[in-house]
Amino acid sequence: MAYNVVPLNELVSQFERLPGIGHKTAQRLAFHILSQPPERAEKFADALRNARQKVHYCSCCQSLTDQELCPICSDAARDRTTICVVEDPRDVFAIERTREYHGLYHVLHGAISPLDGIGPDQLRIKELMARLASGEVKELIMAMNPTVEGEATSSYLARLIKPMNLKVTRLAYGIPVGGDLEYADEVTLSRALEGRSEI
Amino acid sequence: MAYNVVPLNELVSQFERLPGIGHKTAQRLAFHILSQPPERAEKFADALRNARQKVHYCSCCQSLTDQELCPICSDAARDRTTICVVEDPRDVFAIERTREYHGLYHVLHGAISPLDGIGPDQLRIKELMARLASGEVKELIMAMNPTVEGEATSSYLARLIKPMNLKVTRLAYGIPVGGDLEYADEVTLSRALEGRSEI
Repeated sequence: MAYNVVPLNELVSQFERLPGIGHKTAQRLAFHILSQPPERAEKFADALRNARQKVHYCSCCQSLTDQELCPICSDAARDRTTICVVEDPRDVFAIERTREYHGLYHVLHGAISPLDGIGPDQLRIKELMARLASGEVKELIMAMNPTVEGEATSSYLARLIKPMNLKVTRLAYGIPVGGDLEYADEVTLSRALEGRSEI
Repeated sequence: MAYNVVPLNELVSQFERLPGIGHKTAQRLAFHILSQPPERAEKFADALRNARQKVHYCSCCQSLTDQELCPICSDAARDRTTICVVEDPRDVFAIERTREYHGLYHVLHGAISPLDGIGPDQLRIKELMARLASGEVKELIMAMNPTVEGEATSSYLARLIKPMNLKVTRLAYGIPVGGDLEYADEVTLSRALEGRSEI
């Protein structure tokens, strides 16, 4: 194309690298940035830099934080006898939004997936075992994604932890609230049947 | 929410301000940035800053450039007797992609819209008139959006320019190529009928 504005193209290609952003959207976002006051672009640039530099893993639960300990690990009001094990920091945010869980978390940063070369050693399992060693924890809730990899990780951890005489639970399978029975897949429905409870 | 990581929230809210990006997508993009090497975030931040600082309006056609003149205005091979008038720099990119147009452009940066308080004085019409004064230009192509505002701007400019003895044309209305007659609206179809040509 004859019309080549290098700094603009560079910005478009940076937006394009984000997941789910195609070329057209990237262009639209770049033009939006140009149409805004320069301070806005500066603030955006600072936010990018700051987030990447300051946010790191919590030294205890491996979730994200800009402090030594994340706000949950450092919150004295949380129930320290329960740890909810999740694959990703995003899952911590999702569970926190329920406002129903008051224990601690542990983020594995992935799930066992031999095809992708991810074994137990690539996950933050060592750190979890270290936390269990203190003896304070009574229950572990497995909140892995309902996928083959998530299941494999749950069973691996359950086998590893059972001998330590801890309660190991996992999230209930069933039909999602607000969903439509007609559209539920067979596996979900049969799990919902299995897990039925008295009214 | 108890789980509050300030630099992360700041990045999420910056993404959220972009057009068409909701909270969930903003969160996904922010987590993506955190999962990338720090150099990537630095490059993104630099691209934002650079684009906003270096890209400005071409002193001739008012399109975007990081030089004094945009690549089209400074290209000696372009036909200087034709100017295509558009609302937005994005339209220049769109027309350039056809590779069919070899004249110059003029970007108005908007269209006349009394309801939004945009009159002729808020658009780059003065700059267009100055370019026409040189007498080099023979034809003006109105390529405004097919909206009420675009139409109003076209007619306003046509009235203004007609006395100067220039050819003023506008883009053809008709059914979009690859479209479906069945789904074309009445106005488009009647315009396509009006503008029918012999095969």
